Amino acid sequence: MEEVYRLISPNARQLDNSGMLLHVLGMPRSILEGLEKYGEESGRILVYEPEKIKGVVVSGMGGSFISGLFLYDLLSDRASKPILLNRDAKLPSFVDKNYLLVTVSYSGNTEETLRVYLEGYRRGTPIVAITSGGEMAAVSDRLGVPLLRLPPNVPPRAAFPYITAALASILEIITGVSVLEELRQAAEDLEKSLEASLGEGVAVARLLRDDVKSGLTPLVYGYSPYLSPAYRFKTQMNENAKVHAFFGELPEANHNEIMGWGGPLGRFTVSIIRGREEPEYMRARIEFLEGVLKKNGVPLYNLYGEGGSRASELLSLVFKVDVASVVLALLLGIDPTPVGTITELKGYLESRVSYSLSREIGV
Amino acid sequence: MEEVYRLISPNARQLDNSGMLLHVLGMPRSILEGLEKYGEESGRILVYEPEKIKGVVVSGMGGSFISGLFLYDLLSDRASKPILLNRDAKLPSFVDKNYLLVTVSYSGNTEETLRVYLEGYRRGTPIVAITSGGEMAAVSDRLGVPLLRLPPNVPPRAAFPYITAALASILEIITGVSVLEELRQAAEDLEKSLEASLGEGVAVARLLRDDVKSGLTPLVYGYSPYLSPAYRFKTQMNENAKVHAFFGELPEANHNEIMGWGGPLGRFTVSIIRGREEPEYMRARIEFLEGVLKKNGVPLYNLYGEGGSRASELLSLVFKVDVASVVLALLLGIDPTPVGTITELKGYLESRVSYSLSREIGV
Repeated sequence: MEEVYRLISPNARQLDNSGMLLHVLGMPRSILEGLEKYGEESGRILVYEPEKIKGVVVSGMGGSFISGLFLYDLLSDRASKPILLNRDAKLPSFVDKNYLLVTVSYSGNTEETLRVYLEGYRRGTPIVAITSGGEMAAVSDRLGVPLLRLPPNVPPRAAFPYITAALASILEIITGVSVLEELRQAAEDLEKSLEASLGEGVAVARLLRDDVKSGLTPLVYGYSPYLSPAYRFKTQMNENAKVHAFFGELPEANHNEIMGWGGPLGRFTVSIIRGREEPEYMRARIEFLEGVLKKNGVPLYNLYGEGGSRASELLSLVFKVDVASVVLALLLGIDPTPVGTITELKGYLESRVSYSLSREIGV
Repeated sequence: MEEVYRLISPNARQLDNSGMLLHVLGMPRSILEGLEKYGEESGRILVYEPEKIKGVVVSGMGGSFISGLFLYDLLSDRASKPILLNRDAKLPSFVDKNYLLVTVSYSGNTEETLRVYLEGYRRGTPIVAITSGGEMAAVSDRLGVPLLRLPPNVPPRAAFPYITAALASILEIITGVSVLEELRQAAEDLEKSLEASLGEGVAVARLLRDDVKSGLTPLVYGYSPYLSPAYRFKTQMNENAKVHAFFGELPEANHNEIMGWGGPLGRFTVSIIRGREEPEYMRARIEFLEGVLKKNGVPLYNLYGEGGSRASELLSLVFKVDVASVVLALLLGIDPTPVGTITELKGYLESRVSYSLSREIGV
């Protein structure tokens, strides 16, 4: 692995002393590991009858949210039951005992998600927890709530392969779509294209480094079914490279955000996340946007997925943007792993709010 | 009304020659008009039996999307059936004949929404159309699909009060929540607080004008149940003032976007849209964010809703941000009404894609 770091910069290995890049490079292996582990476990622990479940609500924040969006991209036009994403501390009122609630929190101590867990528990909604420990694991053990346990000591955003495999194993049972096999194939495809995708991620990072150094803020656009790698790119640039970056959804952004170009505030660099499932109406809209960006001298990078299936495209896109964000950090001389402000926020909330699920439930 | 323009700038009246500010100032009256018209009509045209409908999918883009988010804010923790928003050209696969599909397109010619209409029609999903005309009205008339007709010759984003009233009249029937009466009361509350809210909108616009002139890009944060005025503020600044502006959802943004502060890219001004339904866990997170912004010298404006109910708060917030965005345009010397790039895009798509719903359906 040392040679990868040397490709980036002389001090890259030293900067990345917690090994964020190694987590990213391990993505295909981690996916395969996760599929093996959770594919077997889910069938055993999921005691609810799939045919009685009207839909699934996946609740999580930040690094624990993105896998839900990834599986939504993969399944939303094939699942016969609704898969709904919840990125809030509240559970919509229609969710009752006929839905399955999947609560995802890597640490197991995310207050927003614990509050949703409590709400679901009080309504009698069947719950499955995905976590590495914390209150969510402790309470689930005591209540007998099914739990898929994530490996410890991983930065939450680097647990993406495990969370995705765990969530997929549940959604396969509920929807009947063979998503585990699709992901297994996607991980194998990614292994094959790893070197090329790594190279592309590094190349994009170099371009973005120059853009950021000249004061341009990254914008990332995506469209269904490739929203998750686009949103992932934004959040990974925030957390790894510690830079501002914003995400927009196409074609919605062409109905409003597009009016900002040509105005006085134009210091941006744009990446568009694309795939083979790009209908003519979407291509036309993107080409028009490209024209507007070109006219305004805005750098534009198109990132495409690799492989023969939607799952392969999505996974390779997440890999590329993860690489690009980590390498961008290293090229800017920043250690990608620590997220100082978020750690401070957790300490602040701990002392001020000090939420406890086990106290709320009384177990 | 002339004195309002004089408050803004000597040439404001002349600049706003299509009267965007007058549309905004007419919001309470337009809401009341819409409630009267559609409240009566919906009961007559909605031929589907509410108890057989499992949930509602509201599909629309841009100015025709925001009313869906507004009603989601108002109803998501009270409705016993799911209200789902779709901002895409595709309809999720689980939507079948047991859901109600509401397609919203002011012009009636929005390709994305017409494609969703077609998909719903093919699946036998009951449809209600909300439009001022175009293909959506023509096809609905021919197929006998229930239609609520919007008044003509209004810029789509200024049709917000009518679209909101029309959509509310449908959701009241499906959910059983008395949302029409809540909106009527909210419009009356807004009439009473109009002058104060107008003043606050103008004051915020002056601050933002200075910020934009010094190169700061506006960011708007909101949280449930006040997401719609926050997203509205972003899109209205884009379309009216022709400036870049971005929207973020709290507490999600505190899990990633917050890491951008203190980095090299920090030329922003922040507005937070708030209300009385702000639990302690949310307040703690906002106060932490305020601390981070203060440390980084970022201007911060808190906008609160007025009135004694959630509907009143939401409506007054939409009014304030609409005022602020239009006045920002006028202070920057820009006519708020024309959206040149979007008009060009429509021409481009017309000649390149030339989608026709009536041709697809064959009516």
